[in-house]
Amino acid sequence: MYDILNRINSPADVKELNAVELEGLASDVRDALFNRLTKIGGHFGPNFGIVEATIALHYVFSSPVDKIIFDVSHQSYTHKMLTGRKNGYIVDEDFSKDSGYTNPDESEHDLFNIGHTSTSISLATGVAKARDLKREKYSVIALIGDGSLSGGEALEGLNVAGAELNSNLIIIVNDNQMSIAETHGGIYKSLKALRESNGESSNNIFKAFGLDYMYVNEGNNIQKLIEAFKKVKDIDHPIVVHINTIKGNGYKFATENKEAWHYTSPFNKETGERYYVPNGESYVSIVKDFILNKAKKDPSFVALCPDVPGNFGLNKQVREELGEHYLDVGIAEEQAVAMASGVAKNGGTPLVLSSATFMQRTYDQVSHDVGINNSPVTILLSYSGMNDLRDISHLGIFAVSTFNDIPNIVILCPSSKDELLQALEWSTTQKEHPVIIVMPSGKVVYRESKYDFNSINKFELVKKGEKVALIGLGDFFTKAQFLAVEMKDKLGFEPTLINPSFASGVDKDLLDKLALNHKVIVTLENGVKDNGLGEKIASYLGDKDIKVLNYGLEKKFIDRYEVEDLLEEIGLTSDKIIKRVSNLIK
Amino acid sequence: MYDILNRINSPADVKELNAVELEGLASDVRDALFNRLTKIGGHFGPNFGIVEATIALHYVFSSPVDKIIFDVSHQSYTHKMLTGRKNGYIVDEDFSKDSGYTNPDESEHDLFNIGHTSTSISLATGVAKARDLKREKYSVIALIGDGSLSGGEALEGLNVAGAELNSNLIIIVNDNQMSIAETHGGIYKSLKALRESNGESSNNIFKAFGLDYMYVNEGNNIQKLIEAFKKVKDIDHPIVVHINTIKGNGYKFATENKEAWHYTSPFNKETGERYYVPNGESYVSIVKDFILNKAKKDPSFVALCPDVPGNFGLNKQVREELGEHYLDVGIAEEQAVAMASGVAKNGGTPLVLSSATFMQRTYDQVSHDVGINNSPVTILLSYSGMNDLRDISHLGIFAVSTFNDIPNIVILCPSSKDELLQALEWSTTQKEHPVIIVMPSGKVVYRESKYDFNSINKFELVKKGEKVALIGLGDFFTKAQFLAVEMKDKLGFEPTLINPSFASGVDKDLLDKLALNHKVIVTLENGVKDNGLGEKIASYLGDKDIKVLNYGLEKKFIDRYEVEDLLEEIGLTSDKIIKRVSNLIK
Repeated sequence: MYDILNRINSPADVKELNAVELEGLASDVRDALFNRLTKIGGHFGPNFGIVEATIALHYVFSSPVDKIIFDVSHQSYTHKMLTGRKNGYIVDEDFSKDSGYTNPDESEHDLFNIGHTSTSISLATGVAKARDLKREKYSVIALIGDGSLSGGEALEGLNVAGAELNSNLIIIVNDNQMSIAETHGGIYKSLKALRESNGESSNNIFKAFGLDYMYVNEGNNIQKLIEAFKKVKDIDHPIVVHINTIKGNGYKFATENKEAWHYTSPFNKETGERYYVPNGESYVSIVKDFILNKAKKDPSFVALCPDVPGNFGLNKQVREELGEHYLDVGIAEEQAVAMASGVAKNGGTPLVLSSATFMQRTYDQVSHDVGINNSPVTILLSYSGMNDLRDISHLGIFAVSTFNDIPNIVILCPSSKDELLQALEWSTTQKEHPVIIVMPSGKVVYRESKYDFNSINKFELVKKGEKVALIGLGDFFTKAQFLAVEMKDKLGFEPTLINPSFASGVDKDLLDKLALNHKVIVTLENGVKDNGLGEKIASYLGDKDIKVLNYGLEKKFIDRYEVEDLLEEIGLTSDKIIKRVSNLIK
Repeated sequence: MYDILNRINSPADVKELNAVELEGLASDVRDALFNRLTKIGGHFGPNFGIVEATIALHYVFSSPVDKIIFDVSHQSYTHKMLTGRKNGYIVDEDFSKDSGYTNPDESEHDLFNIGHTSTSISLATGVAKARDLKREKYSVIALIGDGSLSGGEALEGLNVAGAELNSNLIIIVNDNQMSIAETHGGIYKSLKALRESNGESSNNIFKAFGLDYMYVNEGNNIQKLIEAFKKVKDIDHPIVVHINTIKGNGYKFATENKEAWHYTSPFNKETGERYYVPNGESYVSIVKDFILNKAKKDPSFVALCPDVPGNFGLNKQVREELGEHYLDVGIAEEQAVAMASGVAKNGGTPLVLSSATFMQRTYDQVSHDVGINNSPVTILLSYSGMNDLRDISHLGIFAVSTFNDIPNIVILCPSSKDELLQALEWSTTQKEHPVIIVMPSGKVVYRESKYDFNSINKFELVKKGEKVALIGLGDFFTKAQFLAVEMKDKLGFEPTLINPSFASGVDKDLLDKLALNHKVIVTLENGVKDNGLGEKIASYLGDKDIKVLNYGLEKKFIDRYEVEDLLEEIGLTSDKIIKRVSNLIK
């Protein structure tokens, strides 16, 4: 097994292979992909579709002198195997050495840590510009999927490449006729016309951006790709090489249901069945049900999704059920948020569905199109906090901090099913405020309570106690509850327990009262401390005779971590907090 | 004077005019524009070029039932005059009633507060979507300039309009062959081909996005425009109406030098001379000289500008002098920042030139493409703080707060010429950190000092004093200096005076020492308090026996304000601060 792959220790070894061996390498690579993905999961479709193109790239170009930049880089597994990192795929013990995205810490063949969409062309124009200024000669290649072309940054990149850079830049458009879900947007009509005319259609989005263009119909044919890449290798101006590939190529289940196999958890290769299938109620199922109900009750309701509808349980069947009440804008967060503002201003009820890591791509639209205009838009953020996505390029720990300096935006962090549903119902009914709802993660918490979110920044005083007040935001309210129990146990008094609900402002009345008869306030947040609720509380109480302890993550990027390690590191454990508090109340 | 304009109290009155009167109206509108702009300044070129199209729009469509959305809305002056707000142009005392941008508080004919580029199509798709859900019938119109088409959000909007909306949407592309400076990008080749072929070119960027298309060559001819608009008024699908206009039309000086007349300060109509011409050294001239010198010394240096090169003194002549060391990416902040990361990662020296209000459009690229990758990119932000731009859509008060939760980003706020130059030299020489430099504003401050920015987050202890420590960030260090003098005068002791330089982190050693022998720390910031340096200091010292008073703006949008009023409102005056401090140190 892996006979040929085992001979590849660097891209130079790929160049030594003959045509038959190159086919064998592709087969080995797919075996290696199966080995890793069946056991620990990962991006399936993007990697299975790009095996041949990656082999051809390394056959023709000479990385790291030639620079290859992968968009999103979730399709870089083959590249990794060919650049000295095959053990991350064929040696089970080494899986964790490989990040699943390009990563300069792993290899000189990776230029950037990348995980967000539509960046590769822009990055490549910069790499090429530096090359030109330094009077160096080599190829710069950006490899981008058709799905990523709906993102504005990619289109800005095409525009600049099409006129401002008069030197070598090779933009490979990997057209597999899919985004994560199906593609959306007029640009895909142009791509279709190009595929159907073998690249001859006069309706050519790339030429319209001023770019030279070449089409390769057999994008999973190594020899055809080698031929094409050789032609453009030393080109003296930017060109788009449009290759037609099959997402998930080489695995029947994946080509038959491309959306389900974009990313996979561990699975049985023979049957295609996932070993772990979530069942029972989850925050995802709660949200999905809410959306379906809302669409039935409110004729002007529309859910707008700029990335992964599956994160909210909206598979194809559910999307069809939603009909005109669902709109996929392609991978285009700015469009989603501005469009939502338009819907809201014209009397509709928009709900933007995204995750914390992707929604940060639209700070300005949240601020201007929504915030300044006070449009009653609801934005629901999944994968927030430190529990879910743990790759440096997909962190949820900035969910609150990203937006918490923008006026008019109400940020709600529900701590239970009840609170989440009341938050959703309130925000999609009221017409006064833009609202971001940070979705809780993990096991569903059931705690019945009534909320009046119209009283902006009014915290829920869950239990009146003494000396110490514990404020646990969102997910971390549960931690505050546990801490209260332990504190009573160890320090002999019952602390005050508060569920703030709001992250975007402080309950001044409540804090003023606490300052009169408490000695310490402890805040707990599931994200970075910076721009969090805790900092606002500490600042507000800066001139009062009360101590404030803010718990949350330090401002730094983290990668593939254990949550317990993080909490230990910042002292967010009952023992450590109780020790610190007991010193302060002596 | 204003014979015809005086008869226009609402768009309905425009419909009553005959062809000759419509021409007269255009003439009156230009007189009114001159009246306002010669006296208080404003956007010149965009408004003079769109007079005829705006008249034709209101002749054919029926606002506010039909919805017109202006991109940037700096070209909405004619629209304002025709929708009941002519006094803002012809009655000098009423100038201040008109914001210079569309503003729903002024009129039901304005849907949004808008000031940033490339948003109109996205907003319009949302307005149209709500209309469709509500089963209503009317036209939705987005009017966008060719310069704005380089921005990713506009392209995302075209993509969605081209496939996801099967109903009336009229996108008027106002092609005046200019951005603020000249246009940049491959898309402009396509527009040129369309103009030169009377719209017949097969290279059509709009059709490539799946859109229907119509060309109007005489974009300053009211009758031709009326004819075109009538054709598309009741269309059942999205269409682009591409109109060819002359920026600054009707004023020789403006058509001869379009960049200089994009925006103007008050001027003499006869001579075209501005009444106020800045002279002497300014922070702008200091930066311009730095850039020119840097380009001479560092062959791999490149200044990237995604908006207004003139804000840094880079007029056409200077740009030509910079040659390959200057690159205009069009209005495309995301492209600029990601490209800069590419330049830096490939060993070049990138400097991104923008202002606080526009750079917030690229939060994600600052975080991912630059921050995670720790690319040594320098971003220089002009118009930061509360002094310069005072329109709600162009605020500088979020300069620090927008980015201050992003790890790895060093934010420097220089307080003097010396510090600014040392910050620029350091950041464009070192290779360890991404750096945002917040440019000071107002009169140049001369204060000699040596800085070691390699010691990240090390504050400058300017003067050791007692009891109270004053920390004035950036621009506001001067305020801290004044406050120190007054404090000595009124309270009889000399406070400690600190210039922090860094906004992105706290000097823990220094703060620990201050906590031992001071009673109060006062922080002064030229922006919102949220996510500022002060909050971080208050949080860090939350468990210490020292009071912290954070001064800065409350988190709210402000519009056309007086700085003194703001400072009074937040208590940032020497008298008020001294009173509060004296109570705390009793």
